[in-house]
Amino acid sequence: MHGAVLDFWFDFASTYSYLAVMRIGPLAEEIGIRVRFRPFLLGPIFEAQGWTTSPFNLYPAKGRHMWRDLERQCAILNLPFRRPNPFPQNSLLAARVALVGLDEPWGKDFCLAVFRSEFGEGRSIESSAAMSDVLAGLSLDAAQVLQAAQSDAIKTQLRAQTAEAQRLGLFGAPSFTTGDGELFWGSDRLERRCAGKSK
Amino acid sequence: MHGAVLDFWFDFASTYSYLAVMRIGPLAEEIGIRVRFRPFLLGPIFEAQGWTTSPFNLYPAKGRHMWRDLERQCAILNLPFRRPNPFPQNSLLAARVALVGLDEPWGKDFCLAVFRSEFGEGRSIESSAAMSDVLAGLSLDAAQVLQAAQSDAIKTQLRAQTAEAQRLGLFGAPSFTTGDGELFWGSDRLERRCAGKSK
Repeated sequence: MHGAVLDFWFDFASTYSYLAVMRIGPLAEEIGIRVRFRPFLLGPIFEAQGWTTSPFNLYPAKGRHMWRDLERQCAILNLPFRRPNPFPQNSLLAARVALVGLDEPWGKDFCLAVFRSEFGEGRSIESSAAMSDVLAGLSLDAAQVLQAAQSDAIKTQLRAQTAEAQRLGLFGAPSFTTGDGELFWGSDRLERRCAGKSK
Repeated sequence: MHGAVLDFWFDFASTYSYLAVMRIGPLAEEIGIRVRFRPFLLGPIFEAQGWTTSPFNLYPAKGRHMWRDLERQCAILNLPFRRPNPFPQNSLLAARVALVGLDEPWGKDFCLAVFRSEFGEGRSIESSAAMSDVLAGLSLDAAQVLQAAQSDAIKTQLRAQTAEAQRLGLFGAPSFTTGDGELFWGSDRLERRCAGKSK
């Protein structure tokens, strides 16, 4: 596996992407693979299957379980948890800023900081002001980054990334894809199973 | 946890219930809890949210991932895997027979044998003949058991069990409920997470 690359697909609005982003770094280091962060938008993919919002809102029983499950998982993983309102948050601006950052050294730190703010502190991530706060926390020039995030090049890049996600058969987040065509869906697939006694 | 009871809710048509049923016995023994098998029908629950068949059929991308994921998980868990056709199988008769058996010593063995036949060997579980085969494999009087399975008492019991599942907020299978009102959904929740270094 050494030298292998794992593509990590996530939407900033996705609850289980929070669990994944907070532990993928150490896990990847442990097994010696490189992780490429691939933010995308679930919205167009959900729309294509007839959903106008998160399935956790469309199916209340599923949603109730998700929030309780997330709370339990955060406790096990020792992660702070606070539910943002509304859910899902509009993740368009955060995804665009992330694409700017992922071509620079601060991209992954930005992604972690956004998820921590949103699901650890329950704060909104939708506005320019919210993104400025996160960027300032990383000692970046927020105004300059936000301008780059609204460029045509970044807008096009995000559309292309979302189209690629759809082409790869993604239907939810987080998802993970490998160079040999495997698709794994869900935060639970980040680790190899505990069961089966395999390592 | 000693002396605690975990209710294990499953539908014989459910793919991930196969993964759960094949390992819940040893896991429960390891941590010293008693497991109560609660077969129910997902059909009425899916119908209530507007689904006419399995979501794995309704959403093809989700379905494609599930079959590949199941194949990978079976390999990790060292379980045989073969896809039944059609999917989902009609699980009504198997659920009724299981209710007969779960009041007798052979109930859990019957459940394991049905899942092994369906997803380990890809065989149909729908007909009386298929159920007779499984029952005969457990050295039971198939004709007598099948007659009991079609009694009004058993039919009523299965309807009540499905209604209880719905009342408890179940929306999929496998699910697990505890005496203190917790609901866990999905085969992945059977073990405590590997991550977080907690036991």
